[in-house]
Amino acid sequence: MKKIYHTEVVNDQGLKGTAYTRGEHELAVVTSSPTSTEAGTNPEQLIGLSWATCFNSTIEILLKSKGIEKKSRVEVHIDYCEDQNTKEHFFELKAYAAIDGIDLDEATSYVDTAAKRCPVSKIIGDYPYASYEVIPYSE
Amino acid sequence: MKKIYHTEVVNDQGLKGTAYTRGEHELAVVTSSPTSTEAGTNPEQLIGLSWATCFNSTIEILLKSKGIEKKSRVEVHIDYCEDQNTKEHFFELKAYAAIDGIDLDEATSYVDTAAKRCPVSKIIGDYPYASYEVIPYSE
Repeated sequence: MKKIYHTEVVNDQGLKGTAYTRGEHELAVVTSSPTSTEAGTNPEQLIGLSWATCFNSTIEILLKSKGIEKKSRVEVHIDYCEDQNTKEHFFELKAYAAIDGIDLDEATSYVDTAAKRCPVSKIIGDYPYASYEVIPYSE
Repeated sequence: MKKIYHTEVVNDQGLKGTAYTRGEHELAVVTSSPTSTEAGTNPEQLIGLSWATCFNSTIEILLKSKGIEKKSRVEVHIDYCEDQNTKEHFFELKAYAAIDGIDLDEATSYVDTAAKRCPVSKIIGDYPYASYEVIPYSE
């Protein structure tokens, strides 16, 4: 196994404070509860940003490898949910992927391939509350 | 199923550009390839920030519910790896959790409970390249 890149992140303030990455180009994000009106991001947004960026980059790299120069987009919608029977909390993630200028069938075949390769999609694996859908591209 | 919170994030620029959340307290992050020296965050850091924040908040909430006022911390170390046989790319995630002022056995029992409840840990599920470890707390 070859390690291409290493990064470290720290949270020692819970949901209200900051979380940060160590090292070069350090990123610190202000966090707050998703149910509060205070400014700040939260785990829902951060995992959505991670998946959208990884998934769309994977589509982009795949298209380039086929010599296709088309714009693509991935949106991720996340719901923070409570199961009313068990009172368990969980996130539901829905990704919407689009590629400009090709028909939905062709787009679907690229998106399906990217979903198998994208490292964040692999982490999500067979989590039952995550799914993706291919939709028409719009600006 | 009760929806407690909804958020939407967008990536239409791949790994180099910005990704953003829609709506109130909009967060836009500059992204760049993890292997580039350009400033910017990447999916590795974003999923690490999400897990560290969610896991540590869950520990914090659990401790509070038991009337325990102790500091806790979660660090996540992420490696971007290539399997040299299959050439597949994947992320390896290691979380290090610590609670101040209680012994490791007691800390482990709280961290194990939090790992079952934390919504991001549920998404990671049984992904084989993610693990967590309880370590002594240090400032």
